[in-house]
Amino acid sequence: MTEANGTVLSQFRDTVHKIKSYEEALGLLYWDLRTGAPRKGMDTRSESIGILSADMFKVSTSPELGELLSALEEKGANEELSEIDRRLVTETRKDYDRSVKIPPKLYQEYVVLTAQTENKWEEAKENNDYAGFQPYLDKVITSTNQFIDLWGVKDTRYDVLLDQYEPGMTVAQLDSIFGGLRDKLVPLSAAIAASPHQPDTAFLRQSFDKSAQKEFSLFILQQMGYNFEAGRLDESAHPFATGLNPGDVRITTRYLENDVTSALFGTIHEGGHALYEQNIMPELTNTTLCTGTSMGIHESQSRFWENVIGRSRPFWERYFGNLQKQFPGQLDVSVDQFYRGNNIVQPSLIRIEADELTYNLHIIIRYEMEKLIFNGGARAADLPALWNDKYKEYLGITPPNDAEGVLQDVHWSGGAFGYFPSYSLGNMYAAQFADTMERELAGMWSLVGNGDLHPIKDWLAERIYKYGKLRTPSELVQSVTGKALDPQYLVDYLTKKYTDIYKL
Amino acid sequence: MTEANGTVLSQFRDTVHKIKSYEEALGLLYWDLRTGAPRKGMDTRSESIGILSADMFKVSTSPELGELLSALEEKGANEELSEIDRRLVTETRKDYDRSVKIPPKLYQEYVVLTAQTENKWEEAKENNDYAGFQPYLDKVITSTNQFIDLWGVKDTRYDVLLDQYEPGMTVAQLDSIFGGLRDKLVPLSAAIAASPHQPDTAFLRQSFDKSAQKEFSLFILQQMGYNFEAGRLDESAHPFATGLNPGDVRITTRYLENDVTSALFGTIHEGGHALYEQNIMPELTNTTLCTGTSMGIHESQSRFWENVIGRSRPFWERYFGNLQKQFPGQLDVSVDQFYRGNNIVQPSLIRIEADELTYNLHIIIRYEMEKLIFNGGARAADLPALWNDKYKEYLGITPPNDAEGVLQDVHWSGGAFGYFPSYSLGNMYAAQFADTMERELAGMWSLVGNGDLHPIKDWLAERIYKYGKLRTPSELVQSVTGKALDPQYLVDYLTKKYTDIYKL
Repeated sequence: MTEANGTVLSQFRDTVHKIKSYEEALGLLYWDLRTGAPRKGMDTRSESIGILSADMFKVSTSPELGELLSALEEKGANEELSEIDRRLVTETRKDYDRSVKIPPKLYQEYVVLTAQTENKWEEAKENNDYAGFQPYLDKVITSTNQFIDLWGVKDTRYDVLLDQYEPGMTVAQLDSIFGGLRDKLVPLSAAIAASPHQPDTAFLRQSFDKSAQKEFSLFILQQMGYNFEAGRLDESAHPFATGLNPGDVRITTRYLENDVTSALFGTIHEGGHALYEQNIMPELTNTTLCTGTSMGIHESQSRFWENVIGRSRPFWERYFGNLQKQFPGQLDVSVDQFYRGNNIVQPSLIRIEADELTYNLHIIIRYEMEKLIFNGGARAADLPALWNDKYKEYLGITPPNDAEGVLQDVHWSGGAFGYFPSYSLGNMYAAQFADTMERELAGMWSLVGNGDLHPIKDWLAERIYKYGKLRTPSELVQSVTGKALDPQYLVDYLTKKYTDIYKL
Repeated sequence: MTEANGTVLSQFRDTVHKIKSYEEALGLLYWDLRTGAPRKGMDTRSESIGILSADMFKVSTSPELGELLSALEEKGANEELSEIDRRLVTETRKDYDRSVKIPPKLYQEYVVLTAQTENKWEEAKENNDYAGFQPYLDKVITSTNQFIDLWGVKDTRYDVLLDQYEPGMTVAQLDSIFGGLRDKLVPLSAAIAASPHQPDTAFLRQSFDKSAQKEFSLFILQQMGYNFEAGRLDESAHPFATGLNPGDVRITTRYLENDVTSALFGTIHEGGHALYEQNIMPELTNTTLCTGTSMGIHESQSRFWENVIGRSRPFWERYFGNLQKQFPGQLDVSVDQFYRGNNIVQPSLIRIEADELTYNLHIIIRYEMEKLIFNGGARAADLPALWNDKYKEYLGITPPNDAEGVLQDVHWSGGAFGYFPSYSLGNMYAAQFADTMERELAGMWSLVGNGDLHPIKDWLAERIYKYGKLRTPSELVQSVTGKALDPQYLVDYLTKKYTDIYKL
């Protein structure tokens, strides 16, 4: 590498490192707010977060960074870059072009608007008052449409939003993927509902000591290979995982006295996210490639651990004894009863409480609604009726009110349109990865049955985790499974699992 | 105010707010490192701290800030400012002028050097290896001398360093203050040593349950009026208090199983620091005036609560029953025995374990050594012998090795020359404030004896805390006590207290 190019590269890496340091500081400021920051300091804290975020945005959109990128994109210089640096240039360019198109003033207004709208949403949900929320939501939709115009429309307007969370994903692809999924899951769900072999869940409705729940969460994380020297487990109202750096990937969970499964599966879910971030190759530290490659792939890991592993029969054949010991005299059922009770399928109104199967229908509904908004011109006033119609069509139930319907999710208030599909993509990726793992990792289910989970974690680390953002989602799924994303794996997985449980 | 001046003022306030936000983020990054950050993330975390600190330094020394300051210092504009803004301009100018004189490259090198020297110090202390540490300490001394030259020598070179921690304090003043103090304390200490009435401390050498210690710490903080909605108590290896903002002032403490008094008095000490920061007037929030006015005044508050209140007889007449209940059957002594046992005076080698009286002699030794270094040209090689001579002279004991002698404190490794005097200044300010409080707050000691501590906190808040950095240390002590700092108050306080305890 020429000396001049070396200098440019080093300045570029310093700028990226700076962005990453701001992300770490902001990540900690948020984590702290949610895990135990004193109430009275929160307003000032929010202002500090605003100021640091604005500074980070400024660095990310600085003309200096633009010039460094241009210099490193020149043919001669670009050819001299390592694979990591080349990808870092590509990814940084993408973020840069996206961000510089937004005038800082518009961005500031948007930040304020979405913060207000989230507050309004909280009130509206509590008071079942969609009318009070509607004008705010309309403004967020209008702002999002402005951003779409500034970024430049792709095949459809909604494609622009999808690309934020799942790089390269399009309406054309999702229509086909979700169409296929919907056509299979709706009849499967109906067959399950008609089965006379409904699991018993009565034994789950008990009071479970919170500190015993915590002990079990810690035990399961340790079994999964979560590294406690590079993380910690805390409590928060809404569980989350946050990777401050690969040596500091934190998890939170929530212990509900009357629901032992909430913290249990919540911890495994966040543990899956955390394993991803803990196992990124060290070479990516201090770069913006040091994170999951997309929301969908990230979600595939939380859901792989939560559902594919954590809700499997072999898993409970191994660990149910431990759970029983943790709650003496409380779980006097067979492993089979426990397994089936934790895999009940039932159409329900609330996405975050949905089972592994119908969950995807909740997502398809939101996907179709977002398409109607951005490609079909639907406005906030149209959404409650559209929502209720779709719940009737796909799940056969109608929300009794908007609080349990269109107002249930925070995402739209914060402007996170295009995010929902990631959840179902996660389920699909997880099933496809699991299929490959079953074929390539000898005795995979015996490992689970023996509580020998580390080879599973290591396989995922080697094939997925270590690459961070070095591979795009489509490159990754192709390299791991030899194929593009195919929803049939999820359909097959669910059909097989529930045919057994419900004796279809 | 003219519109133009209003705009300048608002830009200035925004810049100050930005600096304060960086301080909050950095404060949290440090707090987290010390209270529970995962070990494996610490290296990356340190780099992030370095990057954010450098950015904060850049904002604090930017030409833009210099221009805003100049504009606000112009007579017309300055007259239009509120008292708060005028002080903010004065204080910011002082910091600005200090910082801009240091070339960024030199500052960076200094940050790296002191970090290395602190690591070397840790090793050297552990291995009693002064020779290995000496060249590093010499470099820190050389760098500090460079800074003194860049800042500009005052009456003496060492004055420049003192002013960093206690604005306005000089060698001329301290020579007189410490001279008077030493002349009184050395004979008092000798009389105490000669007294036949030595307190019994055997009952303190027991094992005390840590969670019971924690409960008592929380109880005492609540009694002092520490606001738990604006703070929290955690554990760390070295106790500290940190004010992230006035609504978020955190304390840490350390529970030692074989020493119940360490956490007890440590918590009260840090609680005193925290009360100061929690009670600064809201108008100073988001400004750099929102902190204690000097290290000495800050220390006066921790020491007032720890020693004047927390080691007083009335305090234990009220609270010893609670402590006994906390450790059933373990503290079967009289209040008087407990009180006297916690006020034993004995020459000792280690500053941080010293009693309330001889502590000041440890500080005077360090003060005289720092003068020898910066005004007398002493080098690192000279320090062990000088140290041992002074311990012999003032305390009548000689360290058996450097680890328990000149290597005991971290301060010099980090370049914190000029800091030590603050500790004794804190004792002196505390005694002088207490004298005023006794005269002005009716029945002060009855309040303590009744466990009614809030009026004491309120008095301090009204006279001291609320002003933050709005008054300089000398203005503050003058306004509160009607006089300049006078060491005689401390001498009188100690003489009275120990004449009683040791029946002199």
